[in-house]
Amino acid sequence: MDMLIEKIKSEGVVLSPTVLKVDSFLNHQIDPQLMHEVGKEFADRFSSSGITKILTLESSGIAPAVMAGLHLNVPVVFARKRKSLTLVNDLITASVYSFTKEETSEISVSKKYLSEKDNVLIIDDFLANGQAAIGLADIAKKAGSGIAGIGIVIEKGFQNGGQLLRERGFRVESLAIIDSLEKGTISFDKTAKNMEELIR
Amino acid sequence: MDMLIEKIKSEGVVLSPTVLKVDSFLNHQIDPQLMHEVGKEFADRFSSSGITKILTLESSGIAPAVMAGLHLNVPVVFARKRKSLTLVNDLITASVYSFTKEETSEISVSKKYLSEKDNVLIIDDFLANGQAAIGLADIAKKAGSGIAGIGIVIEKGFQNGGQLLRERGFRVESLAIIDSLEKGTISFDKTAKNMEELIR
Repeated sequence: MDMLIEKIKSEGVVLSPTVLKVDSFLNHQIDPQLMHEVGKEFADRFSSSGITKILTLESSGIAPAVMAGLHLNVPVVFARKRKSLTLVNDLITASVYSFTKEETSEISVSKKYLSEKDNVLIIDDFLANGQAAIGLADIAKKAGSGIAGIGIVIEKGFQNGGQLLRERGFRVESLAIIDSLEKGTISFDKTAKNMEELIR
Repeated sequence: MDMLIEKIKSEGVVLSPTVLKVDSFLNHQIDPQLMHEVGKEFADRFSSSGITKILTLESSGIAPAVMAGLHLNVPVVFARKRKSLTLVNDLITASVYSFTKEETSEISVSKKYLSEKDNVLIIDDFLANGQAAIGLADIAKKAGSGIAGIGIVIEKGFQNGGQLLRERGFRVESLAIIDSLEKGTISFDKTAKNMEELIR
């Protein structure tokens, strides 16, 4: 997705060979126009998948997920990272290990908002080791929902999450795939870009 | 805002005389079409205020804030409730006491995304005791930003947050004001509704 790739090139900050900071438009400050286009792109890619619900994780997944929900005209559910006081019963939970924070956290969704009638599109801001997406997929499976695919804003192609998810049979659609952050330079996956151009 | 009030009437669950659960469209599951209209309403009400940035709090403020940002064509910044590992330097922080959780938490925004050049619209999902909005206003003030007003999706008019903020001179625009949750019934502020009708 060219508009996204240009934004990453101009505003992304390489903090280390594995950490890309995109706080100016995705993770802390949010660019609503870009998110609108990101949502439209997810909607286009999954338009024939019969999506009934979008599942994401607070907080950075919410903006792209809500925009995808707007274009697909389906509700969005965001999994919570901590249990809320008014949301204690009937939760579906999964454990997610964060390699960045070196800790396992529980994510949860109310049983009321996912069922065997749903066909879910999972959306997240980043794909690195795939643990968050696997946790969200676990929740959808526990609810008996179908999983149409996983939409990712930025995939770090040099980490193993994408491979892990694709090997498990998930359709993964990443709008930008980064090949490398070595030497402070952001390199994008040429194949992904070519594929995108071919689709057009 | 009639569409919102109808949604609260049909899907809001009164848990106690002070707690209204709107998890089906705002706090856990999100209705993107409704949020789109909520964002449009905020944009209409603040269209002549020269807003340069929207400030909200993760997680439930993000969806209405991003939709308002889409319509006002300005970036959104969400304050974080916990410090992120890649966001440690140059934070502006404020303390927020939660009466529900009975604990004080720190909220923070990177100095990079708020400055004295900004004229901020604060957006949040709920207004009860006003502590979150006051914390967000503190952050904007510390950054030297102007504060054009505070946009609230649902105000609990029987709690003192609205009065507190208005006494401090803030322009508070609440899209639905609830007068009472007594006896399991949701009563809306008639004055607010009349005022809204008058504006039309």
